[in-house]
Amino acid sequence: MHNNPLTSGLYTDFYELTMAQGYFLNGWQHKEATFDYFFRLNPFGGGYVVFAGLSDLLQSLEALKFDDSDLEFLKEAGFDKTFLSYLESFRFSGEVEAMREGEIVFPGEPVLLVRGNIIEAQLIESLLLNILNFQSLIATKAARMRQSAGDCTLIDFGLRRAQGLGSIHASRAAVIGGFDSTSHTFGAKLYDIKSTGTQAHSWIESFQDELEAFRAYAKAFPNNCFFLVDTYNTLRSGVPNAITVAKEMEENGQKLRGIRLDSGDLSYLSKKSRKMLDTAGLGYVQIAVSNQLDEHIIKSLREQDSPIDVFGVGTSLVTGKTDAALDGVYKLSSFDGVPRLKISDNKEKTILPGQKSVYRFTDGDNCFVADGIFTQGEKENRIHHPADQQKHMETSSLTGEALLKVQMENGKRSHPVESLENIYSFSKSRLHQLPPEHKRFENPHEYKIGVGEKLLQLRSTMIENIRNKFTSQ
Amino acid sequence: MHNNPLTSGLYTDFYELTMAQGYFLNGWQHKEATFDYFFRLNPFGGGYVVFAGLSDLLQSLEALKFDDSDLEFLKEAGFDKTFLSYLESFRFSGEVEAMREGEIVFPGEPVLLVRGNIIEAQLIESLLLNILNFQSLIATKAARMRQSAGDCTLIDFGLRRAQGLGSIHASRAAVIGGFDSTSHTFGAKLYDIKSTGTQAHSWIESFQDELEAFRAYAKAFPNNCFFLVDTYNTLRSGVPNAITVAKEMEENGQKLRGIRLDSGDLSYLSKKSRKMLDTAGLGYVQIAVSNQLDEHIIKSLREQDSPIDVFGVGTSLVTGKTDAALDGVYKLSSFDGVPRLKISDNKEKTILPGQKSVYRFTDGDNCFVADGIFTQGEKENRIHHPADQQKHMETSSLTGEALLKVQMENGKRSHPVESLENIYSFSKSRLHQLPPEHKRFENPHEYKIGVGEKLLQLRSTMIENIRNKFTSQ
Repeated sequence: MHNNPLTSGLYTDFYELTMAQGYFLNGWQHKEATFDYFFRLNPFGGGYVVFAGLSDLLQSLEALKFDDSDLEFLKEAGFDKTFLSYLESFRFSGEVEAMREGEIVFPGEPVLLVRGNIIEAQLIESLLLNILNFQSLIATKAARMRQSAGDCTLIDFGLRRAQGLGSIHASRAAVIGGFDSTSHTFGAKLYDIKSTGTQAHSWIESFQDELEAFRAYAKAFPNNCFFLVDTYNTLRSGVPNAITVAKEMEENGQKLRGIRLDSGDLSYLSKKSRKMLDTAGLGYVQIAVSNQLDEHIIKSLREQDSPIDVFGVGTSLVTGKTDAALDGVYKLSSFDGVPRLKISDNKEKTILPGQKSVYRFTDGDNCFVADGIFTQGEKENRIHHPADQQKHMETSSLTGEALLKVQMENGKRSHPVESLENIYSFSKSRLHQLPPEHKRFENPHEYKIGVGEKLLQLRSTMIENIRNKFTSQ
Repeated sequence: MHNNPLTSGLYTDFYELTMAQGYFLNGWQHKEATFDYFFRLNPFGGGYVVFAGLSDLLQSLEALKFDDSDLEFLKEAGFDKTFLSYLESFRFSGEVEAMREGEIVFPGEPVLLVRGNIIEAQLIESLLLNILNFQSLIATKAARMRQSAGDCTLIDFGLRRAQGLGSIHASRAAVIGGFDSTSHTFGAKLYDIKSTGTQAHSWIESFQDELEAFRAYAKAFPNNCFFLVDTYNTLRSGVPNAITVAKEMEENGQKLRGIRLDSGDLSYLSKKSRKMLDTAGLGYVQIAVSNQLDEHIIKSLREQDSPIDVFGVGTSLVTGKTDAALDGVYKLSSFDGVPRLKISDNKEKTILPGQKSVYRFTDGDNCFVADGIFTQGEKENRIHHPADQQKHMETSSLTGEALLKVQMENGKRSHPVESLENIYSFSKSRLHQLPPEHKRFENPHEYKIGVGEKLLQLRSTMIENIRNKFTSQ
């Protein structure tokens, strides 16, 4: 693996390449296509998704190419010579319109559009889905944990249980959702995330006893010292020894930062530990917890008034447990100037054809009310339920904001790379504008996504035309 | 991301680095440690795990180093100068003993042991867990699908829903579990896997009609041609058009390879399509299906005698849905010549201390009966239940095979890299030796893992010594 895989033209499904060759041999290298990226279902039974991965995607598109070994591989796989020459100088030269990274987005609305010649727009499908689906899944999971954790510190501990190299982008997406730092050093370096950690049981066990282990760690890291207190017995050994060493540190003008609980009942143990620490005059020593946490456990721990300052979250954060994937898709909506459509028996799954705009409508309190999807440039004052046209809503009294912005032109980014801090701060402010009933964990209220009449009309006409074909055959 | 992340010394949890520095400052760079890799729970409610990732791990360990930018990052993070000089020339120089890649393994037994100085053995923890946990999860999932699919073709279609770059190793692990090919071109090139694919709806939609789209594809790829038949209407449009073009291909001496069904009731549609194809004299045209498949759906489709030849599996394969991770851990079992132990209130979670051997016992039919864990080099003729010593089993009439083999010495692989084909073929033969009651999906019978008396005795003595400390305090 000599390259960054995300800049290799081979980081795609094989059929994208065969189709690309097919388009090429048809002489279609200048025919323009538009593809829409959208998802159909909110993950985790929740009411929203935090859109993430855009910056990584744009970076990949800028650098995407086929190197000699890639071309050699395709040659051996039987690809056409003239097509291979085309790929030799291939660079993505299209346009990307998308919502801002960190935006709060909803099922069924186009979150990102790609416009380019059919070959390049097709080739990048798998790469795009791979990046956006995963980072959006993890940013959403992280945002739910931030929702539960209030102002407590959240640390990504997931590297060891992450899905291989998925760890890297999981750490990035976690910050977009509201995590403070990561234990994943490679990810921290790559994305300028704060890296943190405590100590493992092996540290404790490699010393004659726990007290000696704590002392040695305090000596080595006096300024950032957390003691793991559950190796032998949390309340009878770990916490008392931590207190002993914390007092010794005070004599040297140092302060123990915290203790970490990694097993047992975290609510009970945090309360008992807090009391022991406070009684010893160590009110400043923080309590960190870990062990199979997720947004529901964090919520429950805080509802029990557990005096916890830091949550370290692993598996469920970086794998987006209990959902494995966001179901985002990339569908052709226009080709060679003509709107396109894939029909489904389920009307809600039939895609919206043609070039489109998306508007977000907010009320006088600046709260999100509904999003509207319209034929491009044709904002209307009424939006309809996508599957039940009789359900509709007037939007004239609301403020409408266009959500899709040009992010890339002629294969070059339109804006400089944003810091993760900025993306999170934007995301946080947007999530704040979303009414609480869409954010609750249990049966959240469905956010309204409406469609303009012109667009619905276009879809109906196209469906009718296709259906007529079969009955007349 | 300029390097292969898996060869960077930073692809680890931050605390491995701080602990490593602590060991270094203690002057322990020559003290030997042994860590055991094992897992506690079979994923997917199943009865076994396919051990995978070993070769990638060994490759990473051979190449692992800290480059200038890594060292610069650590310097800024406040690491000690003398420790950074040590890391500058750091290479992993330890020993790895492990079961063969592809081996069928069970909860609680050491699958891999690392012996080295405490610094190197600690540093690689997160890297090792990241690689082995994920690939073993996916190889196990793939093996379950192979179990359901019989001799049908299985293709990995997961790239678009994979957890970011986790896609790459997922494609590798899928082959170890029994998949035939992948749509993931980068993974195919890297691991010499057969790459395959059909066509997407966008291909069909970019033509005036479906028939024209099929004809164009047949012209471009006459030798490997699958038609996606559900864009408009499977039985009224897709299959009839596929038949038309297949007959045209016959006139040119070509053969359509197959059709793909991607929506609707796959059992119903495959039967109807098969009949239509057969009636047209196209008995050789295969039927491929995709759309949210997993081992249970594949099993059900085959139980309904659905005439399906090829299964394309995405999300549930490459993400190991419904489990997000294998819970493998890496625990210090010996340091500086002394066995080590982490106590848990749950006796089964208390680890087995010291240097160990693992034997697999087979009966006269060459079937697996039980595995035994012993103090190193001390195979006994009786094994005990790890948590309930009164439950035991005599093994003298069985054949015992030592499972842990030296895989790496002084930081160098002991064996050449095996092909994925060989690993799968080994895994397949081993799975064949596992009795069916351990392989069924519903409440599989638990495979027996026993512990020798000497090892149990060692553990009991150590627990007692630690507990006595607290009561005497």
